[in-house]
Amino acid sequence: MEQIKIVKIKDNLRDVVEDLVTEEVPLTLIVGGEEFITLLCSPQDLEDLCAGFLFTNGLLTPPQDVEKIVIDQERWTANITLREESKVKGLVFKRLYTSGCGRGALFYNVADVIYRSKNASVLKISVLKLKDLMLSFQKRSELYLKTGGVHSAGLAQDNIFVFREDIGRHNALDKVIGRGLQDGVDFSKTLMVTSGRISSEVIFKIQKCGIPMIISRSAPTDQAVKLAKDMGLTLVGFARGTRMNIYSGAERVT
Amino acid sequence: MEQIKIVKIKDNLRDVVEDLVTEEVPLTLIVGGEEFITLLCSPQDLEDLCAGFLFTNGLLTPPQDVEKIVIDQERWTANITLREESKVKGLVFKRLYTSGCGRGALFYNVADVIYRSKNASVLKISVLKLKDLMLSFQKRSELYLKTGGVHSAGLAQDNIFVFREDIGRHNALDKVIGRGLQDGVDFSKTLMVTSGRISSEVIFKIQKCGIPMIISRSAPTDQAVKLAKDMGLTLVGFARGTRMNIYSGAERVT
Repeated sequence: MEQIKIVKIKDNLRDVVEDLVTEEVPLTLIVGGEEFITLLCSPQDLEDLCAGFLFTNGLLTPPQDVEKIVIDQERWTANITLREESKVKGLVFKRLYTSGCGRGALFYNVADVIYRSKNASVLKISVLKLKDLMLSFQKRSELYLKTGGVHSAGLAQDNIFVFREDIGRHNALDKVIGRGLQDGVDFSKTLMVTSGRISSEVIFKIQKCGIPMIISRSAPTDQAVKLAKDMGLTLVGFARGTRMNIYSGAERVT
Repeated sequence: MEQIKIVKIKDNLRDVVEDLVTEEVPLTLIVGGEEFITLLCSPQDLEDLCAGFLFTNGLLTPPQDVEKIVIDQERWTANITLREESKVKGLVFKRLYTSGCGRGALFYNVADVIYRSKNASVLKISVLKLKDLMLSFQKRSELYLKTGGVHSAGLAQDNIFVFREDIGRHNALDKVIGRGLQDGVDFSKTLMVTSGRISSEVIFKIQKCGIPMIISRSAPTDQAVKLAKDMGLTLVGFARGTRMNIYSGAERVT
């Protein structure tokens, strides 16, 4: 976070005060020596962001495909060294192939049928536990509390064991997934907690990981609900205080 | 909006009820007969979205470059017919050139210096008027009030004369800008009102239009503040009730 001078207006008072704003950096991913993409993001946990971004966009699976990720915080680059040279070609090909990309839905096809298999996870969780998790999630949203400018996401079982923040809704998710991949987490036993809206792209991401459940304090879109039903995922929205809406997969909530 | 059955949990009660969720559609832009990009968006005001997207991403300037935009609501395509054939080539070239695109910052370079000129607009506006505008903005956020799932943006002078909503923060802005372009609005006399966070990309968009001022109920990032200062733009954040923070260009707020 950065401290800057602002003009604060409250009722009829006008003061110059110091205030905190959230940082935003342009991180350029260099894969196999070649510039690949620039992400606008918060400057924390950038290895996790790279790992998650590459995976959720269907490009590479860390850590199997990735030998190391080196972040340069002066030039804001991420140098990603691959384990097999052959993967680079696939990546470059994909880059050209998908150049007419959507905002957010960069590298996968929204109508992609290969992810349309049912999630078979037998995970169950009680309403009480969900409320506890949301409460502790809210409490941990530090950057948000201080600057109001970021999204958070977390991976939970009995408690939230991965927690990440970012100015981008998708980046926060990717950071959590990237950390989980690098730690070898069994995603089928986890649930994703997020502060952001749940659109179809978010559902594609958790399905790709095999995460059976997502809960948010925000709203889902109709497409997200349809996809979640198709894929056998549990989608909980508007989880605030003692309320929540279950849009899909209510059998996992006991 | 679509009505669906959900499981609603409140305190210890669990009920199946009908609820509204916001719609999300994949709109494929076809420019000069060729598929160009697919945007995930709310299904309203799609001509405005196309016009705004093409302009803010530096591709085309409607209505000069665009003869007509025809929306097909069955296949969710937008057929964009250009006035001059030559423009198409530029577009295809750009598409390949920028294939390593950022999420959101698709077609322009974040560090692009050509937009770094100072905005010379002499627009001034009182704190009282800003409060009025934010209040009426909040009241008009219909989709948000019903489903909690969308962002809104508006263009204002003495009052808000263009108002648009979308599941995407950038789409809402693009819809407003697209409408303004098609109506021949003099942007230098307007201010942008938005519900969303203000990142560097948002600042690039309003600068490209020549809009001298942006106000939001949410937070800006540090990069957005720096750019706004460089460009001579007025940036107001956290405008809620009788409070607001002026991060840049306070001389326009009287």
